[in-house]
Amino acid sequence: MIHSFLMAGQSNMAGRGFLNDVPPIYNEHIKMLRNGKWQTMVEPINYDRPTSGIGLSASFAAAWCLKNKSEDIGLIPCADGGSSLDDWSIDGILFEHAISQAKLAQKTSNLEGILWHQGENDATPDAANRYEEKFSLIVQAFRRELKAPNLPVVIGGLGDFLTEGIYGAHFSAYPIVNKKLKDCTQSIPNCYFVTASGLTSNPDFLHFNAASQRIFGVRYFEAFANHKHVLEPLKEEEKILEMIDQRHLSETEKKELLNLKFMSGDLSLEDYKTELSKL
Amino acid sequence: MIHSFLMAGQSNMAGRGFLNDVPPIYNEHIKMLRNGKWQTMVEPINYDRPTSGIGLSASFAAAWCLKNKSEDIGLIPCADGGSSLDDWSIDGILFEHAISQAKLAQKTSNLEGILWHQGENDATPDAANRYEEKFSLIVQAFRRELKAPNLPVVIGGLGDFLTEGIYGAHFSAYPIVNKKLKDCTQSIPNCYFVTASGLTSNPDFLHFNAASQRIFGVRYFEAFANHKHVLEPLKEEEKILEMIDQRHLSETEKKELLNLKFMSGDLSLEDYKTELSKL
Repeated sequence: MIHSFLMAGQSNMAGRGFLNDVPPIYNEHIKMLRNGKWQTMVEPINYDRPTSGIGLSASFAAAWCLKNKSEDIGLIPCADGGSSLDDWSIDGILFEHAISQAKLAQKTSNLEGILWHQGENDATPDAANRYEEKFSLIVQAFRRELKAPNLPVVIGGLGDFLTEGIYGAHFSAYPIVNKKLKDCTQSIPNCYFVTASGLTSNPDFLHFNAASQRIFGVRYFEAFANHKHVLEPLKEEEKILEMIDQRHLSETEKKELLNLKFMSGDLSLEDYKTELSKL
Repeated sequence: MIHSFLMAGQSNMAGRGFLNDVPPIYNEHIKMLRNGKWQTMVEPINYDRPTSGIGLSASFAAAWCLKNKSEDIGLIPCADGGSSLDDWSIDGILFEHAISQAKLAQKTSNLEGILWHQGENDATPDAANRYEEKFSLIVQAFRRELKAPNLPVVIGGLGDFLTEGIYGAHFSAYPIVNKKLKDCTQSIPNCYFVTASGLTSNPDFLHFNAASQRIFGVRYFEAFANHKHVLEPLKEEEKILEMIDQRHLSETEKKELLNLKFMSGDLSLEDYKTELSKL
């Protein structure tokens, strides 16, 4: 049975890291939900916008695989760029969509957690101060609707770069959001906080860059696996990413990747046949 | 109110044309469903696989816009690569997923048709001969579940290239599927057939290439708009595609496209500002 995780929140959960900035993660044990069915994961996983790219869930899943050899993990992409907590209210479309996707996934997987990153759109003083109250209701509703009363929820902090860029004026209250996110993990059972400390952004100063998303995913996994808050960068995060990057592809994965290249027009039929015969 | 269309079937409805082979279609009046909400359409629309690319629905929508100035069309992507008619059975995941997506879309749009392309996976004599029987049940169930008893359904033929490629042996019975698809349009009310005559493929001899998908979409629109079967290539199809390609971008669209380029890392902050100031 696939171990599945729901991805929810806004653009930094969907992922906006540039695709070519980090080594790809391709692992037949990592799946993503497409049309209610599982496919081998290829980024972008959460295709909410044309700018979708590297997110934290891929390295979360790869770190999970280091600890769970030969088992399968599945990612359920439901994050939506620019969404506020009010957009995630339990009578809204995003919540309903996420529940419908998670329920489809539950037919063929065991739902084991929610990966949440959201808050940029609530980084005004008024909205930030109501974060805990609103988010608690959302978590309760997820757990109730999905019949998973103790479902772990991992939530990450906002980046310290937000106020530096051309859109910086919108994010004056981001430290309040970060405080409220931490408060949530005190008041909501089985909810863990992950720091974004030290992570950097794309030139837009809005979105974690690809390398930072990879690190963030490793931190999210540490929080999930050990039921603890990650309040400082992990000493071993770079080493874990090296292990992920150095994993050898299986024969099946090599064949699938060749097929993807051929089907995408990046490899001629002749070259495809030649490369395939070498495996 | 957005006029919406459900995309269902297998890979040639999802679209596998290479993205850079045809001019992009970008039109603020063409939307696609993402997380239950409408976004301006950018291909790939139906991201079922990493190889997803140009499909027929984009030019269908662009042709629709030529006739429905200043109104909005929305595409609901639910096609799934490699799926058989049995995979679309009404107790299966693909059907349930499509219904859930269409119902979310119906909250904010008026569902006006189903665009269907499927059959490659049923191109064995035994499966092909049961096409009409199985497909009729699926159409009835879509109309019943979506409370749209007369919902138009446009279905397209399989490409004549299928038997020519390295996978050709699988498709011996494709002419039977094409005959059965035509038969469906005789027995199912408000169901229209569109020929794939003259259309060509990617080097895989499985998937319509990008240019052919653009033509196919124009033919689908002709069938939908005029409630008729399109049994031969249209005399004006190239001219309609020229009109689509020559459409001038609005100021909003130009700004949005610049923003997408900046957010994707294809434009530096300085160049983004410079280009933006020229609009």
